[in-house]
Parts: sequence; C-alpha cells; structure tokens
Amino acid sequence: MTAYGKKTWLIPDTYLNSVSKNGNISHEAICVINTSDVDADIRFTFFFEDRDARTDFSSFCPAMRTHHIRMDRLRNADGEPIPRDVPYAVLVESNTPIVVQYSRLDTSAPEMALMTTIAYPVED
Amino acid sequence: MTAYGKKTWLIPDTYLNSVSKNGNISHEAICVINTSDVDADIRFTFFFEDRDARTDFSSFCPAMRTHHIRMDRLRNADGEPIPRDVPYAVLVESNTPIVVQYSRLDTSAPEMALMTTIAYPVED
Amino acid sequence: MTAYGKKTWLIPDTYLNSVSKNGNISHEAICVINTSDVDADIRFTFFFEDRDARTDFSSFCPAMRTHHIRMDRLRNADGEPIPRDVPYAVLVESNTPIVVQYSRLDTSAPEMALMTTIAYPVED
Amino acid sequence: MTAYGKKTWLIPDTYLNSVSKNGNISHEAICVINTSDVDADIRFTFFFEDRDARTDFSSFCPAMRTHHIRMDRLRNADGEPIPRDVPYAVLVESNTPIVVQYSRLDTSAPEMALMTTIAYPVED
Repeated sequence: MTAYGKKTWLIPDTYLNSVSKNGNISHEAICVINTSDVDADIRFTFFFEDRDARTDFSSFCPAMRTHHIRMDRLRNADGEPIPRDVPYAVLVESNTPIVVQYSRLDTSAPEMALMTTIAYPVED
Repeated sequence: MTAYGKKTWLIPDTYLNSVSKNGNISHEAICVINTSDVDADIRFTFFFEDRDARTDFSSFCPAMRTHHIRMDRLRNADGEPIPRDVPYAVLVESNTPIVVQYSRLDTSAPEMALMTTIAYPVED
Repeated sequence: MTAYGKKTWLIPDTYLNSVSKNGNISHEAICVINTSDVDADIRFTFFFEDRDARTDFSSFCPAMRTHHIRMDRLRNADGEPIPRDVPYAVLVESNTPIVVQYSRLDTSAPEMALMTTIAYPVED
Repeated sequence: MTAYGKKTWLIPDTYLNSVSKNGNISHEAICVINTSDVDADIRFTFFFEDRDARTDFSSFCPAMRTHHIRMDRLRNADGEPIPRDVPYAVLVESNTPIVVQYSRLDTSAPEMALMTTIAYPVED
C-alpha cells in the first residue's frame, strides 16, 4: 500500500494529569497509522518549559497497523515514566511515513473531557 | 460546483466505546461533504493494533450532499458491526474529491464529552 | 496588514442541538478572522443529507476584526433560522482572505462539552 | 536541530471565560514549541468584534523549549490582563519558526470541558 503521511510531526500541547476521579484514567495518546510496508521505529523528543529536552523515550507501529501510544504507560530504558503535571511538547520522528493524531482524556473532574487534533506535519 | 477536497484521508484515532450512560449513545461519525457533481463511493480500510487490516466496510455521499457516517451503525455485507472497545484507525478513499471531519461523542460517564478534527488529507 | 488565509473553507460536521440544560445555550460558532483591509462578505452554502443545498444565509467580518458567527442566531432574509437537530455541512466563501475555525458547545446534558477545529482551507 | 514550523500563525476562536466552578480555572493556552537554536520573541495581535486591534501583548519561547502560554495570566506593559467574556482572535508572530496549538479548558459548569486544535500556519 502507499506509504501515506510524513516522517516528522510536532505536538505543542501535551500534559499528563496525575488526577483521575472516575474509572477512566486521565491519559494522553499519540495515535499513529502506518500504511507502509515497513515497521515504523518512532523516536520522541520531549520539550519542557524549565529543563533540557529529553530523547530517552521511543515507540513503534508495525507495517499496516495502528498504534494508539498511551503516554501514561510509556517507559524509557530505565523504566521511568513521563513526568506528570508538567507542560511538555513532543517531536515525533519515524523512519517511514506515518500519520499522527493527538488525543487527551481528562477525568480530574468526575466526568470526562476529551480533546483531539491531527498533529502538525513537516513537509519532507 | 467545484469539487473541493481530496480523494484520500486518514484518521489515526478511532474508537467505538460500548458504554453509554445517558440518552445520547457513545458514537463516532466520519463526516463527509461532497461538493462535486458525482456521487461519492467511499471505501474504508480499518487498521488495528493486533490483527490484519479490514476492507469490508464502505459508505457513500451523494453529489451536493453531506453524510455524517455513524460508525456505530455501519455494517458490512455480512451484517457485522465494527468491533467495540478496540483501538483502530481509518483510511478513507473516495472516487471524487471530498472533505472529511472526524468527531467522537462519549457518554461512558453520564455527562457528554466531545472531540473533533479535520482528518489528514493526502495531496493528489 | 497582510491578508492572511484563504477565500474558501469547508466544515463537514455541523449540527445545531435544540436541547440546552444549563445557562449556556447549545450552539455552534463559525469563527472568522479578517486581517485584510477589506470588509469580508461571507456567503454560506449549507449541505444536507436528505434535501438540496441552501444558499440563503450569509454573514460578514469587517476589516481587521474577528466575528464569531453564532449559527443559532443566524437568520436568512425571510427571518428563518438554520434547521435544528439535522446534520449539515458548510461551505464558507469570502471575497477577501480569511481564516476560519469551527467550534461547538453542547449542553444537552447538564454539563458542557466543547469541540473545535480549524476548518479545511481550499488552496487558491 | 532543524527549526520546524512557521513564523506566523492565526487562531480565530479565542475567549477567556471569567467563570470557574471547580479547582481548575477556566483558561486558554497558546502552546508553542521551538526546535530552533534561537529564542523566540512572540508578538500577539488581538482582533475584536467591536473595537480596534491591540498589539500590546507579547510572550516568548526559549530555544529547544516549549511554552504553554496561559492567556489568563498574560499582562501587557501596563499590567493589564486580556479582556474577559469577549470574543477575540489572535495573530501570532515569531522571529524564528515555531509550531502553535491552541487549547481551552472551561469550568464555567462544575465539570471540565476541553477543546484543542493546531493553529492555522501561514506559508512563508
């Protein structure tokens, strides 16, 4: 199948809320679709407001699959999670074209709030 | 009228929640506008995290009409619905240019949450 | 100032909910920014699922102003409102470049739900 | 690192709600990512429905950092905040390429509502 999308995407507004007040845990997902014949190796760079950028987190999306990457479950090689309750931003880089959508579910109040947007694609 | 839009669109974050706790059923809609003089035949390819892609679902949008395609009501030729509670992603292909917007309404908590985004268009 | 944006925009998912259960009325807004030196005359074409398109609604945005066009308050020359509880879609056409964002506030459940997206721009 | 993004962005639908009914204050954030080696000086132009545009607010985003600019906390040189409960729109201009996402959290009802979108980028 045609490899749709781009290899580089940016998401300026990411934030992992540590508070959940209903059965659905507050979380973010970086959702990837890979229509190419090649498995996607996905490297993240996290940008912060008050500290240096980090490049120690990565993920993947197999060929002809989707992966809704749960950022609250992601761990680096040392088993560390992404910091909670801290504004950050994400650069997504892949070896093969992908399409990226960012969604957030917040249950810090008992009811659910949702937001989503297609990420910003960089032209090759 | 000018046929606005593109023939190919992608939506990385789709998910049909099986739980509804108010009169509005949790659902997704793939909303299409067709400003061309030709009826749009719309083919879906669904991508999953843990199984092969499926191409057995389709829909339509007549010329000079909109169609808010309710994914919870969509059935394939065998009368099967889209799997619930499973992350998936959608490739939308049309024979004529269309514009595509994806929206989700979630009532798994008693109150409503909404999210929407224009889908990702593929340049011809 | 530079006239930023495009003259033609599309919004596939529009819907005016007739039900409101808190002080904020359920509504949609087509939000326009006009950075040009010319007042924008804005023509709408509404597309439906089950009837012909309508071109009897219009609005405006003065030069160097914004206009958050409340679709629930919009009236045509005969004083008629947009139909409620009916899926529709909107083509927005302006005589001068503008940028368009679509937002919906739903209070059909007592709490508020919000969604927004930049509309789809047509390259000139 | 490559300086991703554009220098000019627009957000047609901005609105600072003065009412908050839970611990999270109703607010907007203009979220910026700066992958360039140069600190970003960010100038805002605010457009209104019923008064002249204002250029007396600005912000920043250091090189290789993000800044989730809280519009409810922003002050001009005279210590004035952005007007509340008034529809406005924002032109964002930077000296170096950035990517911009706009998000709103509303707690004017006791529960939270969220919405987000990547802003509209102007091609250089």
